[in-house]
Amino acid sequence: MRHDPTGGQRPAYFGFQQPLAYRGPAFVPSAREPFAYRHYDKNRLVLGKSMQEQLRFAVCYWHSFGWAGTDPFGDPSFERPWHGAGEPMAQALHKADVAFDLFRLVDTPYFTFHDRDVAPEGASLAEFHTNLRRIGEVFARKMQDTGVRLLWGTANLFSHRRYMAGAATNPDPEVFSYAAAQVKNVLELTHELGGANYVLWGGREGYETLLNTDLKRELAQLGRFLQLVVEHKHKIGFKGQILIEPKPAEPTKHQYDRDVAAVFGFLREHGLEHEVKVNIEQNHALLAGQTFEHEIAMAQALGIFGSLDMNRGDELLGWDTDQFPNNLPQVALSLYEVLKGGGIGQGGLNFDAKLRRQSIDPDDLVWAHATAMDLCAQALLVAERMLQDGALQRHVQQRYAGWDGEAGRAILNGERSLEDLARDVAERGLDPRPRSAQQERLEHLVNSYL
Amino acid sequence: MRHDPTGGQRPAYFGFQQPLAYRGPAFVPSAREPFAYRHYDKNRLVLGKSMQEQLRFAVCYWHSFGWAGTDPFGDPSFERPWHGAGEPMAQALHKADVAFDLFRLVDTPYFTFHDRDVAPEGASLAEFHTNLRRIGEVFARKMQDTGVRLLWGTANLFSHRRYMAGAATNPDPEVFSYAAAQVKNVLELTHELGGANYVLWGGREGYETLLNTDLKRELAQLGRFLQLVVEHKHKIGFKGQILIEPKPAEPTKHQYDRDVAAVFGFLREHGLEHEVKVNIEQNHALLAGQTFEHEIAMAQALGIFGSLDMNRGDELLGWDTDQFPNNLPQVALSLYEVLKGGGIGQGGLNFDAKLRRQSIDPDDLVWAHATAMDLCAQALLVAERMLQDGALQRHVQQRYAGWDGEAGRAILNGERSLEDLARDVAERGLDPRPRSAQQERLEHLVNSYL
Amino acid sequence: MRHDPTGGQRPAYFGFQQPLAYRGPAFVPSAREPFAYRHYDKNRLVLGKSMQEQLRFAVCYWHSFGWAGTDPFGDPSFERPWHGAGEPMAQALHKADVAFDLFRLVDTPYFTFHDRDVAPEGASLAEFHTNLRRIGEVFARKMQDTGVRLLWGTANLFSHRRYMAGAATNPDPEVFSYAAAQVKNVLELTHELGGANYVLWGGREGYETLLNTDLKRELAQLGRFLQLVVEHKHKIGFKGQILIEPKPAEPTKHQYDRDVAAVFGFLREHGLEHEVKVNIEQNHALLAGQTFEHEIAMAQALGIFGSLDMNRGDELLGWDTDQFPNNLPQVALSLYEVLKGGGIGQGGLNFDAKLRRQSIDPDDLVWAHATAMDLCAQALLVAERMLQDGALQRHVQQRYAGWDGEAGRAILNGERSLEDLARDVAERGLDPRPRSAQQERLEHLVNSYL
Amino acid sequence: MRHDPTGGQRPAYFGFQQPLAYRGPAFVPSAREPFAYRHYDKNRLVLGKSMQEQLRFAVCYWHSFGWAGTDPFGDPSFERPWHGAGEPMAQALHKADVAFDLFRLVDTPYFTFHDRDVAPEGASLAEFHTNLRRIGEVFARKMQDTGVRLLWGTANLFSHRRYMAGAATNPDPEVFSYAAAQVKNVLELTHELGGANYVLWGGREGYETLLNTDLKRELAQLGRFLQLVVEHKHKIGFKGQILIEPKPAEPTKHQYDRDVAAVFGFLREHGLEHEVKVNIEQNHALLAGQTFEHEIAMAQALGIFGSLDMNRGDELLGWDTDQFPNNLPQVALSLYEVLKGGGIGQGGLNFDAKLRRQSIDPDDLVWAHATAMDLCAQALLVAERMLQDGALQRHVQQRYAGWDGEAGRAILNGERSLEDLARDVAERGLDPRPRSAQQERLEHLVNSYL
Ligand SMILES: [Co+2]
Ligand SMILES: [Co+2]
Ligand SMILES: [Co+2]
Ligand SMILES: [Co+2]
Ligand SMILES: [Co+2]
Ligand SMILES: [Co+2]
Ligand SMILES: [Co+2]
Ligand SMILES: [Co+2]
Repeated sequence: MRHDPTGGQRPAYFGFQQPLAYRGPAFVPSAREPFAYRHYDKNRLVLGKSMQEQLRFAVCYWHSFGWAGTDPFGDPSFERPWHGAGEPMAQALHKADVAFDLFRLVDTPYFTFHDRDVAPEGASLAEFHTNLRRIGEVFARKMQDTGVRLLWGTANLFSHRRYMAGAATNPDPEVFSYAAAQVKNVLELTHELGGANYVLWGGREGYETLLNTDLKRELAQLGRFLQLVVEHKHKIGFKGQILIEPKPAEPTKHQYDRDVAAVFGFLREHGLEHEVKVNIEQNHALLAGQTFEHEIAMAQALGIFGSLDMNRGDELLGWDTDQFPNNLPQVALSLYEVLKGGGIGQGGLNFDAKLRRQSIDPDDLVWAHATAMDLCAQALLVAERMLQDGALQRHVQQRYAGWDGEAGRAILNGERSLEDLARDVAERGLDPRPRSAQQERLEHLVNSYL
Repeated sequence: MRHDPTGGQRPAYFGFQQPLAYRGPAFVPSAREPFAYRHYDKNRLVLGKSMQEQLRFAVCYWHSFGWAGTDPFGDPSFERPWHGAGEPMAQALHKADVAFDLFRLVDTPYFTFHDRDVAPEGASLAEFHTNLRRIGEVFARKMQDTGVRLLWGTANLFSHRRYMAGAATNPDPEVFSYAAAQVKNVLELTHELGGANYVLWGGREGYETLLNTDLKRELAQLGRFLQLVVEHKHKIGFKGQILIEPKPAEPTKHQYDRDVAAVFGFLREHGLEHEVKVNIEQNHALLAGQTFEHEIAMAQALGIFGSLDMNRGDELLGWDTDQFPNNLPQVALSLYEVLKGGGIGQGGLNFDAKLRRQSIDPDDLVWAHATAMDLCAQALLVAERMLQDGALQRHVQQRYAGWDGEAGRAILNGERSLEDLARDVAERGLDPRPRSAQQERLEHLVNSYL
Repeated sequence: MRHDPTGGQRPAYFGFQQPLAYRGPAFVPSAREPFAYRHYDKNRLVLGKSMQEQLRFAVCYWHSFGWAGTDPFGDPSFERPWHGAGEPMAQALHKADVAFDLFRLVDTPYFTFHDRDVAPEGASLAEFHTNLRRIGEVFARKMQDTGVRLLWGTANLFSHRRYMAGAATNPDPEVFSYAAAQVKNVLELTHELGGANYVLWGGREGYETLLNTDLKRELAQLGRFLQLVVEHKHKIGFKGQILIEPKPAEPTKHQYDRDVAAVFGFLREHGLEHEVKVNIEQNHALLAGQTFEHEIAMAQALGIFGSLDMNRGDELLGWDTDQFPNNLPQVALSLYEVLKGGGIGQGGLNFDAKLRRQSIDPDDLVWAHATAMDLCAQALLVAERMLQDGALQRHVQQRYAGWDGEAGRAILNGERSLEDLARDVAERGLDPRPRSAQQERLEHLVNSYL
Repeated sequence: MRHDPTGGQRPAYFGFQQPLAYRGPAFVPSAREPFAYRHYDKNRLVLGKSMQEQLRFAVCYWHSFGWAGTDPFGDPSFERPWHGAGEPMAQALHKADVAFDLFRLVDTPYFTFHDRDVAPEGASLAEFHTNLRRIGEVFARKMQDTGVRLLWGTANLFSHRRYMAGAATNPDPEVFSYAAAQVKNVLELTHELGGANYVLWGGREGYETLLNTDLKRELAQLGRFLQLVVEHKHKIGFKGQILIEPKPAEPTKHQYDRDVAAVFGFLREHGLEHEVKVNIEQNHALLAGQTFEHEIAMAQALGIFGSLDMNRGDELLGWDTDQFPNNLPQVALSLYEVLKGGGIGQGGLNFDAKLRRQSIDPDDLVWAHATAMDLCAQALLVAERMLQDGALQRHVQQRYAGWDGEAGRAILNGERSLEDLARDVAERGLDPRPRSAQQERLEHLVNSYL
C-alpha cells in the first residue's frame, strides 16, 4: 500500500511516494527510481545564495489542481477525483491534500493561488469569504507542517460572468466595488499567510471592441483601483510586493497591461511606479511580440522587476499555451538577465504552466514540475558560468566605453546643447566609424557555457 | 506636347496634365478624364471645417521620389530618370520638379521629407548641410508658387552605416553628436519652411540582440537626445509639434518606441509628456499587434495625439508594406476616432505609402495618391454621419452612466477606500447583473453609415 | 403576450416575433421595427438566380444553441434555459424549438449541426444513436413545417476525451472504429434529412508533439478513414458532397488538413480528388496565413471548391474567434471569387460564427444573424456589379493574352523543350519588358463598385 | 605577412590564416588560436558514416559574398572590396578567391550558388552565359585544387525587374522563355561541375494581388516549367536531385510553393512526385507556420525529402532573417528527424544564412560559419544518442502497437467497411480508454541527451 498523505482517509493520488532526491548529473533512472534531480541541489551555493533561494520555485494551484483538461473544443480529460460530484468544501479539502502532497514530492518551497482555485464560491460573496477563510486555516496548518510558503495570492476577477466586461474597468461601478471587496479578502489572507507578493492579472481589463468602450474612463478606473490596493496594503502592513502581470490579449481582444513598457507608463501616470512591480510571464511576453529576456531587462531598467511566471509559449501558436519550460539555452538567457540585474529578490519562479491535455496520469503532474525544476536549475548553472566568466559583460562594457568618457558624460548630464554638439561635429570634422557588433561570436560564446 | 512644369527643359513626367477635379459621386471615367474625385471636394464643410483642413493630406518624398522599386530580393523596378547616372544636385532638382508637379496634379496641401530624400549627402556633413540649404531655397520658392505647405520634416538617422547600431542609442557618443548635428539642420530648415511638425522615427533606436546591448544606457541616451531636440525647438522659436513615430521592429529586431503606450511611458520618464506627441502609422500599429483605431484612441486618452501616417499594412505579412489605404470601413473607423477626439489639429494625413513594386508607370504615382485621397474623403463623410447621428456615442455614454452617479464619482475622486467598498458590497448585498455589450448590433450600426 | 412558437408550453425566447422583412435601402429603424433587411431581398435575381439560391445561408447549431458563452478563462455567460439542470432529451427538444424559431425569424433557408449539438450523448454509443434518431424525427417534422433544409451534418470527433489524441489518426484503432461508427450514424441521418453535404473537420487529426507521433502512420489512417466515408456514401446513395474543412491548428498544435493546398495533396495521394471537396472558413484561412479569397480561388483552380463557413477572424489575434462577417469590401471580394468561379453550387454560406461572449440578450442571436445576412446580400450586389461591369476580368485577360497566342499555347501543350526556348531567346534576342501591374488602380476599381 | 591565397596579387582578406582545427570539447581559446572545433571532428563515425558525410555542409555564395549588408532601410554596411567600382569580371574573380579561401578556412566540403552571385550579368543573356562559363572554369580548377564540391547550383529568377511579375508564372510567355534559357545554362553548368542537386526557389512565383492574377493559369505554367527542367535533366544525364525550396511569401504577397504539403500536391498534380524533392529551410518553415522538424518529417513521409537550408528565423519577426543556427536542442531535434528518416542522402546542410548587418569584420564570416558547423556537429551527436538509446522510438512504437495487430491491419488494408466497424463497436460494446501521451516526460527525455 502506498503512502497516504491524508491520514488514511483515501488512497494516495500519486504513484511517487518519496520526495524526489538530488542524485547528480550521472543519475540513471531505474524502475525503482524513475526520476531524480540531476541539477537541482537545493542547498548548493550559486553566486552566494542557495539554489533554492536563487530560484524560489512555486507550484500554482489553478493549472495543476483547478483545471480539468478542457480546451475550447474539448471536454475535461483529467478526471481528477475532486472535480466530480461531491460536497464543495470536502472537494476543496481533498484538493488541498493532493496539492500539498505534490509540493512535498517535488520539494517546492512555494505555491501560489487564486481565491477561486482553493475555495468554493458558495451562493454569495459572504459565503465565499467564509469558505476562503476556512481553507486559509487549513493552508496555514499545512504550511506550518511542511515548511512550504506562499509566493503570492491573487483574486480571480475574470471567470465569473459578472466580470465579463472587466472588473476595475467595468462600465458598472458596482462591479468595481465587488472586485474591490474580493481583492480585499484575498490580500488580507495573503498577508496572514505570510505571502511574499500579491499579484493582479487584468484578464478582462481591456476591451472587445472600441465601439462600446470609453478607453479613457477605463484607464482612470484601473488606475484608481490599483491605488486602492496599494493604500490598503499599507494600511494592513503587508510588506509583500504588489505585482501586475502583463499580457496583451486573451481572453480580451485587448488588455491594457500589454507589456512591461505599457505597464510602466500606466504606473507613472498614476504615481505608482515605486509601489507596484511586474510579474512577467514568458508566454505573455511572447504573445506581446517580446522575448522573455527583453521584458526582464526592461523591467530592471525601469526599476519595476518583481517576479516571474516561468512557463513557455509556442512561437507558432497565437494563444496562451502555458507549457512547462524546456529549452535550456532559452531559460539560461532569462536567468542570466535575472542574475545580472540583481536576482529574483522577493519574487520567485512560479510555474504558471499546465500539463498538455493528453497527460492524464496523476504522475504527469510530478514529472512536469520536477523536470521543469531540474531544467531551471541546470540553466541557473549555465547563467552562473556566464556571469563568473564575465566575457559577455566585458564585451558590453567595452562597447559603450565612450559614454564613460568626459564627452559622453557631459552629454548625458545635460551639459551640452544641440548646438554644442553640432559645433563639435563641425569643428572636429567628426565622421564616426562603425565597429562590428559581433553577434555571431557572442551567440557562440553563450553556447560555450551550456 | 504635354504640359511641362519645369519650364521647357525636359518633357513632363506624368501623362496627367491638369490637376484632378472634383466631379461628385456620379462621375464616370472616360478616355479624356480617366479619374476625377468623387468625394474629395476640398472646400466642402465637414463638421465646421473644410475637408482640406479636416484631412490635411501630405505626399511623402521618400517612397514616391526616393525609392527605386527595390525589395530585399529585387533590383530597382521603376527607372525614375533622376535615379540614373548624373550630377547629384541636378538630379535632386529634377526630382523636386516632378514632386511638385505631383503635388499640383493631385492637389495635396502638404508634403513631407527626410533630409536625405531631397538633397545629395555629398562627402561630408558640411556639404550635406550646404546641399540641403540649396534645396531648401528651391522648396521655399516652389511652396510660394504653388501654395503647398510642409507638414513635417525629418532627418534620416538610419540608412547610413554609421547609424547601423543606432543614432541616439549608439554605443559611440560621436554618433550621437553626429545625429544631433543632422537633426539641428533639418529642424531649423523645417522651421524656416514653416513646417507644422517635426518628426523623429527611431528606425535604429533599438537592438539586434540583448547580448551586446546595454538597454538601460540606451534608454537614457534616447531620453537625453529627445530633450535636446525639445530645448532647441524652444530656442529657435519653432511652434510646430515634435512627434515620435512608434514602430515595434524593422529594421531592428526591437525598437524602443514600440507603440503609443510604450512611447508614453518613455515621455513621462523623461519629463516630455507635454512636449512631444506621436505620429501614428497604421502599418506600424499593425506590426505592434494594435489596431490603428486603438493607437489613435490611446494617444488621445493620454494627451499625446499628434499626426497620422496614413497607409495600410498587410495583416498576413510580417513586414512594413506601406500600402495606400483602401478599406473604406477601416479608414472610416480611424477617422471617427480622430474626429471624436477633436480632429487632426496641427497634424495631418501623411501618405507614408509606396506603390507596389510592379506599378512602374509614372502615372501610377498619380493614381495611387488620388484614389487614396478620395477614399479618405469618402471615409470622412462616413465618420461625419457617425458623429452627427450620435447613436454610437449615446450607447457608450449610457453604458458608463453609473460612473457619472454619486457612487461612481466618489470612487474616482478618491473618497472611498477598499474597506468602504467592501463594506458597501456586504451591507447592500450587491450582486451586479451584467448587460449585453451588443457588439454585433454596433458593428451593424457602423455599416449602416457606409 | 408574445408569439409562442412551441405551442404554449413556454414563453417565446426571442423578443422578435415576426420574421424580419425586406424593406430596401431606405429603411429607417423604429421602435416597432428595429430591424429589416435593406439588401437581402431573397427572391431578387442576381446573375440569373435568386439571392437565396446564390447565397444559401445556413445557421449553425453549435455556436448559437450549443455554446454557453465560455472562453478559456471564463464561465458560461449566456444562461440559455436549455443549458441548466433538466432531463437531457427535454432540453434538446427545447433547444430545437428555439433553433427553428430563430430560423423562422431570420428566414434562413438552411441549417447545420454536429450530432453532439442536437442530441444527448447518453451512456453509450447505442444510446447516443437512439437519441440522435429521435431528434432526427423532430427535425424532419420541423423541416417539413418550415421549409428549412439541411446544408450539412457532421459528427463531433473532437470534444470527448476518447478523441483527445485524434479520431482517425488515434494511436488506438478502437478509437478509429468508434469514430467510424459515429460518422456512419450522422452520415445516414444527413442523407435521410436530405442534407446537401456532409462535412468532416479534423479538429484532433494532427498532433501536439512530434515526439510521440508517427506522422506517416497517421496520414495513412486518415486517408483510409476518408475512403471509408466515401465508400459508404455511395453505398447508401447519398448524393451530397463530402467536404473536408481545413484549419492549420487549434485545438491541436498541428492539424494535417492545414489549408486548401495541403488538403488537395492529401486527396490526390489517396485517390479522392474527385470525391471530396473543401468547406473553406474565413477564420481558418486567416490562421493558416491565407486570405479567404485565396483559398476560394485555389480550391476552384484545383477543382475542389465545395462550400463556405462564412465568418471572420481577428487579424491581430491568434485563435479562432469565429465572428460574424462585417467588412463589406472583404466579403464582396470573397463573393466575387465565388461567382467568378461558377457560384456556390451545392454548398452554401454557413455562419460558423458565434456571438461575442458579452452579447447575452436572446435577441443578440437574431441581430447577429440578420445583420450578417444583410451584409452578405449587400456584398453579393457589389460582386454582381464587378462581374457585370467586367473591367477587372478584362484587365486580367489582357494581361495574360500572350499565353493565348501560338507561342504560349505551344509551351503549355508540351511542344517546346527547354532547349527550344533557350534557342528562341538567343535567336530572337529576347529581352522582355515588364508592364505595370496597376494594383492601386485595380483596388480603386473595386472600391468604385461599393 | 599573412597567407595570401591569391598568389600574391592582393593581401589576404581574412585574419584567420590556417584552416580551423578540431581540438575536442576541452579546447580553450587563446590569442593564438581564438577558435577551434570542439565537436566537428569530420572523420568521426556517427551511425556508420563520417560526420562530414552525415552533415554535408555547404557555404552559400549569395549571403556571404554577394550581399553588401543592406536592409530595406539601410545602405551597404560591409564594404567588401569586390563590391566597389571596378571591372565586373575582375571583381567576380576577386570574390571567388575570397570565397574559396573561406571554404578552406572553415573546411566546408560543399558550396552553393546562383548564377548572378558568381558572374556579371553583362548586357545580354548571351554575355551573361559567357561570363558564367568563364567563372565555371575558374570554379572547376579551384574545386580540383581544394576538393570542395558543389552541393547545388540555381538560377536567380527573381532579382531583375523582368521577373517582377514572376518567371514561370509571368503573364508574359517571353519571360517564361527567358527564364527557361537561364535555367538551362545553370543546370548544365551544375551538371558539369558535378553538382549533387539543382534547386529552384520560386521567389516571384506567386502574386501580389488576386485582382490582377489568373491563379489557375499560373499554376499550369509553373507545372510545365518544372516538367521542362526535369525533361532536360534526363536529356543531359544529370544524376543530381531536382529540388523545390518552399517559402510562403516574401518577396511576394503569396508564393505557390508555400510549404512541403503544398509542394507535394503540386508535384502530384503534374506527375512529378517521383522526380522532384524539396529543399527545406528552417526560416521558411517558420514563416509558413511550421516547425523545421515538421517539414522534414512530412517530406520524408511523402517521399520527397531532398536537402536542407540550415539557418534560423526569428520567431518574433515576420520576415526572412536567415540567421545562422544556434539553438542546440532545436537543431538536435531537426537532425534527429533527418537521421530517423534515413539521413541527408544526396542533400546537405547548406548555410543559407547571413551575418547580421552589424557584423562588418571580414572574420565575422569565418566565425559565423565555423560556430554554426560546430553547433550542428554537437547537435548531430545529441541526435545520435537519441537514436542509439532508442527510448523515444520505442515509446512511439508501443503507442501505435494496436495498428500492428490484426484489427488495425485489416482496417488499413481495406478489409473493413464503415458498416463492419460500426457493427464491431456495437457488438463488442467498445468504449476505448485514452492513455497519457506523456509529452512532458518525452521532452525531458530529449533534454537528457543534451
Ligand atoms: Co501567468
Ligand atoms: Co499564460
Ligand atoms: Co511612417
Ligand atoms: Co511603415
Ligand atoms: Co468552420
Ligand atoms: Co473557426
Ligand atoms: Co533558402
Ligand atoms: Co530564407
